[in-house]
Amino acid sequence: MAQLSISRRLRGTPYTNRLEAAGVKAYTVYNHMLLPTVIDDVEFDYHHLKKHVQVWDVSCERQIEVRGPDAEKLVQLMTPRDLSKAQIDQCFYIPIVDESGGMLNDPVAIKLADDRFWISIADSDVMLWAKGLAYGFRHEVAITEPDVNILGVQGPKSDDLMARVFGEQVRTIRFFRGAWLYFEGQSIYVARSGYSKQGGFEIYLEDRTLAEPLWDALFAEGAGMQVRPGGPNLIERIEGGLLSYGNDMTRENTPFECGLGRFCDVEASIGSVGRNALMREAQNGPVRVVRGLNIEGEPVPGCRDPWPVTADNGEWAGQVTSAAFSPDLQTNIGIGMIERDYWQIGQSVWVETPAGARRATVGDLPFTVP
Amino acid sequence: MAQLSISRRLRGTPYTNRLEAAGVKAYTVYNHMLLPTVIDDVEFDYHHLKKHVQVWDVSCERQIEVRGPDAEKLVQLMTPRDLSKAQIDQCFYIPIVDESGGMLNDPVAIKLADDRFWISIADSDVMLWAKGLAYGFRHEVAITEPDVNILGVQGPKSDDLMARVFGEQVRTIRFFRGAWLYFEGQSIYVARSGYSKQGGFEIYLEDRTLAEPLWDALFAEGAGMQVRPGGPNLIERIEGGLLSYGNDMTRENTPFECGLGRFCDVEASIGSVGRNALMREAQNGPVRVVRGLNIEGEPVPGCRDPWPVTADNGEWAGQVTSAAFSPDLQTNIGIGMIERDYWQIGQSVWVETPAGARRATVGDLPFTVP
Repeated sequence: MAQLSISRRLRGTPYTNRLEAAGVKAYTVYNHMLLPTVIDDVEFDYHHLKKHVQVWDVSCERQIEVRGPDAEKLVQLMTPRDLSKAQIDQCFYIPIVDESGGMLNDPVAIKLADDRFWISIADSDVMLWAKGLAYGFRHEVAITEPDVNILGVQGPKSDDLMARVFGEQVRTIRFFRGAWLYFEGQSIYVARSGYSKQGGFEIYLEDRTLAEPLWDALFAEGAGMQVRPGGPNLIERIEGGLLSYGNDMTRENTPFECGLGRFCDVEASIGSVGRNALMREAQNGPVRVVRGLNIEGEPVPGCRDPWPVTADNGEWAGQVTSAAFSPDLQTNIGIGMIERDYWQIGQSVWVETPAGARRATVGDLPFTVP
Repeated sequence: MAQLSISRRLRGTPYTNRLEAAGVKAYTVYNHMLLPTVIDDVEFDYHHLKKHVQVWDVSCERQIEVRGPDAEKLVQLMTPRDLSKAQIDQCFYIPIVDESGGMLNDPVAIKLADDRFWISIADSDVMLWAKGLAYGFRHEVAITEPDVNILGVQGPKSDDLMARVFGEQVRTIRFFRGAWLYFEGQSIYVARSGYSKQGGFEIYLEDRTLAEPLWDALFAEGAGMQVRPGGPNLIERIEGGLLSYGNDMTRENTPFECGLGRFCDVEASIGSVGRNALMREAQNGPVRVVRGLNIEGEPVPGCRDPWPVTADNGEWAGQVTSAAFSPDLQTNIGIGMIERDYWQIGQSVWVETPAGARRATVGDLPFTVP
């Protein structure tokens, strides 16, 4: 594995010192910020995440705040999802597309007030898109990146750990809802969400002087629960069918190709960017779609460049964009875009991995894990 | 040093295989792409760059192509630099600022035709800014990221090496000008530019099937010149006063603070974004400005977070954002933003480094290297 040269440009977080003291092994860079990917090793972290509870430094899920009289208008302009019934403190997964319907980001938006939204972004500078649109349309909004540094608490023991730190009320938060809870006398937004399928919360910390006290409190209260630092886990997120922007979808793909058609209301989202471009695909369906793949044979390496997928007759059938060996499934699993002719569940295809061509079977996402 | 988890999202380049075969030691991530930072070690690479010639994989300098009847209008909207006299095949360093005059990027723009520009960007998604503006203003333009993968040739022997591969005509290209030259029968844009002060060229390769042949030709022809792979070198670029977007300047800074006032024509660039916000600063000057700093004592570590700069009386005097030990100057050198009261050349200040407080002297950029 290559090393990472860290500079100010790859921003550290208020938790970086704690993470480095804990011996973080590897980072990726996400929204110009350090995101820990390996604490012990990917497989150890995977088993631990599925059994216990982890504290994740996901500060790199930067918030773009849109505030002002035209805030809702601008956020609606940015997504084909219909936000007209959005309630306060509700989280929305919103595809953001360009004028051709190509994915620019797949954030979670939170409506904090009628005139105030946070957009919790994947890895692209959505702020520049929002600012450009707002400038062109002369919207009355302020668009900022507040110093919010999210700590994720993920894993089956998340409710128990969070209840010890934030009180029993945290258990009543429903999925994709949030509440303002207290820590050291300060009100902090906590949502039941996160980039794993093991359950958990995201703590939207605004006051960075509380970062290390919050980290320390989670580890002190979690000592008996085998709490450990963690981060989005490649194996677990593929098993769970969690797509990664930049990996499994890019500007080349529409939301329908990404399996996000249910978040697009092209009838209702009149005036949103890319809506016209998506109208026909909304009716006819996409020409390719994201699928899971079971890839036979020995464990494959990680997927750095897309791996071509071909049919028995040699025809192009798509590409695999993320892959790992699943210890619980005892097979290689992958996520990829598969063309219409070959996307039936059970279809047999070939995947060109760096370790050679492999037989693979097209399947649903998420994977069914025992 | 931490390791880097590579995935498709951190895009490889057509040269990555060659670089890895050459034993690249470290990368940074720039425009969602791998940028090599260390080949042997930073100090070895530094001495080599200043004596010989290096081939740099700077594919991460992505091109944003703006094409169409409104291309020039959009590019002018994006910068306070006056482009009205821009000639074809000329390179322009253009500050790009937001509505408040804050730096969004500091690219080099090339006018390829009256209706076609390439913007060779620093590390932020300028495409989203350009697309947002164009959508809002209903400009008739197509904005794309063509598959251009720049190879830099940098160092005092650059002209000799380039002449062997592209012919003697390359020597006639003036600084910040370009020409279309031939390699294996294909026309390739070559500019005299690059992110070092050692002289050299940037080869804008459009056909990725020529990437490895081009790399191999440069190494074959350069064998007698001690050619080596390289990349932007931290020490050399600080000596040369080359600012790095995200490190030495951010959205918090104006072009005037960054010493880029000479690239801002606020009188002429009527209608450009941020022009109004910069008018007063153009007259009165900024409240802080980028400076070089000589930092006394033992070699300092790299600058991950800004280092506070204070005056003898304890007052805030600014911050250092890049630093390294210069072997040729035999002192620590840094780049930082220094407040007006303390920005005089020769001013003595304190810098709070991770290795303790150090005496430092404010100076000009670039550093004077013997």
